[in-house]
Amino acid sequence: LPLPEKSLIAGIRSQARRRGAVVLGIGDDCAILKALAGQEMLVTTDLCLEGVHFRREWHAAEVVGRRCLTRGLSDVAAMGGKPMAAFLSLALPAKLSQRWVDGFLSGFLGLADEFDTRLAGGDLAESRQGVVADVVVIGTAPKGKAIRRSGARAGDRIYVSGEVGGATAALELLFSGRRVRTKDWPRHFHPIPRVGVGEWLLKHGVATAMIDTSDGLSTDLAHICEESGVGAEIDAEMIPRAVAGRSTVDLRLALHGGEDYELLFTARGGKRVPDEIGGVRITEIGRMVKGAGVYVVDGGRRRRIRAGGWQHFKGRS
Amino acid sequence: LPLPEKSLIAGIRSQARRRGAVVLGIGDDCAILKALAGQEMLVTTDLCLEGVHFRREWHAAEVVGRRCLTRGLSDVAAMGGKPMAAFLSLALPAKLSQRWVDGFLSGFLGLADEFDTRLAGGDLAESRQGVVADVVVIGTAPKGKAIRRSGARAGDRIYVSGEVGGATAALELLFSGRRVRTKDWPRHFHPIPRVGVGEWLLKHGVATAMIDTSDGLSTDLAHICEESGVGAEIDAEMIPRAVAGRSTVDLRLALHGGEDYELLFTARGGKRVPDEIGGVRITEIGRMVKGAGVYVVDGGRRRRIRAGGWQHFKGRS
Repeated sequence: LPLPEKSLIAGIRSQARRRGAVVLGIGDDCAILKALAGQEMLVTTDLCLEGVHFRREWHAAEVVGRRCLTRGLSDVAAMGGKPMAAFLSLALPAKLSQRWVDGFLSGFLGLADEFDTRLAGGDLAESRQGVVADVVVIGTAPKGKAIRRSGARAGDRIYVSGEVGGATAALELLFSGRRVRTKDWPRHFHPIPRVGVGEWLLKHGVATAMIDTSDGLSTDLAHICEESGVGAEIDAEMIPRAVAGRSTVDLRLALHGGEDYELLFTARGGKRVPDEIGGVRITEIGRMVKGAGVYVVDGGRRRRIRAGGWQHFKGRS
Repeated sequence: LPLPEKSLIAGIRSQARRRGAVVLGIGDDCAILKALAGQEMLVTTDLCLEGVHFRREWHAAEVVGRRCLTRGLSDVAAMGGKPMAAFLSLALPAKLSQRWVDGFLSGFLGLADEFDTRLAGGDLAESRQGVVADVVVIGTAPKGKAIRRSGARAGDRIYVSGEVGGATAALELLFSGRRVRTKDWPRHFHPIPRVGVGEWLLKHGVATAMIDTSDGLSTDLAHICEESGVGAEIDAEMIPRAVAGRSTVDLRLALHGGEDYELLFTARGGKRVPDEIGGVRITEIGRMVKGAGVYVVDGGRRRRIRAGGWQHFKGRS
């Protein structure tokens, strides 16, 4: 076996004895997962490409591994689900160092361990150019209870976990060529999928609709509006903007910056929503309204905002 | 939305009304699948890269789409499972034509339809170089009944479905630069995953171990030997070699050629195994023996063969 394949298989085998719903994790044509009684299966798949989703000169191998898995765990969190297993398909350039592969797996498996998710399989191929990772995460939710994007209605309040804008602020600094200290920008270099928050919201029947802020607040809120058939109005002053060092990110980044992996959800008007869930701050930022579109109220003025979809590195490099 | 994304979503939506175990197929953070009572879930993931697994100058878009999905369906077949849903992650070069994307999806969805498998989600990104497809197939098997590679024991008979060597014979012709007529080489250009054969073998409790011949008879039989802790002996004359035009492929290709996607399985010595299952020929080619390794008996001589693992296009182009 070539070295990367050895690492990958060793990584999978290192988790093979862990208890859980993975009946068979490696060594056959398919992995076998338990189908848990009264549960539905959640499946999400995310492509991560070098030059599009990360750059090896900006992101340490561990950071890349962690970020790739974060996307899938966050998708499961956004349904209120519990992640169970992950699958990793990797295409690697022939000249990539063993050290890089080990670092990638270390970041990936470290995050998987944090969220009791087992690497249950994958595929490996040689890439002609750049690292390609496709990550599948499988989770579960009680039958009929997964929190969809489509359940919001006019009058619902809008909430977001944590802070927004920090991940893209770090990215803009990277693009500007300035020195970016990893520890100053945790949402970019060390994102945390809000799995516990999502599970809590499902268990307590609080959220009527939910999505994660992978594309940015404006775009992701527009998705809830479209799928629910309503509009939204948010208060600029209430948005919890990320703080890095002594500065707070500007409104543009808080509204349109992606990859924060916070949870954006709605709850009925009378429902009590705590200020904090599992140590994560929850902030009310607006309300769902009749009609369509996303509006921002800023200094007494109400303006419609175009979903300024954050497009990875597209057209910027 | 860019055109490829529109096509992909239209393709997913076109299947959205089909009945089955897919509760929610698009428009949210995850797809939702039913967890069927008494069943386990089978999961397989396969990377297909341009230049490694296919070439656009050799393979029509429809052929590429079909071949990418065949790998996953065949993995589910190799466990005796029933495919349920597929997920498609595609990274496409910006300059790729809409016609190519449509053709790819046509090949992919046509095969999915044939096997009642629903495209339930995926991801899309821009590739800097070449088409990358990662395909996940999810299937089901009755709890504890999936046919693994590890169940063979000495004395079991070895069987293979269909014919072997045809897919790689076509590939060698393509490499030689000669004209290759698509219709003459169906196992290469129009592979058929043996889903019905696998399901039949599971239902009737016939197979003790099974694998699909994606890497080639010698390599795949060696996998059964390793996982089962036994050896194997096959009779060269009994191997069902592929026929194309007026010629039969040579023994080397029949033994080592990959991507035929036939099923290779073992059954207890006394077990009746039919000559044909669902219209597919089943041929007894040898027996499992004590010890280790794969042996071929050819013209009265018995020789050990190295698993001549078929390595895609590696090192050949």
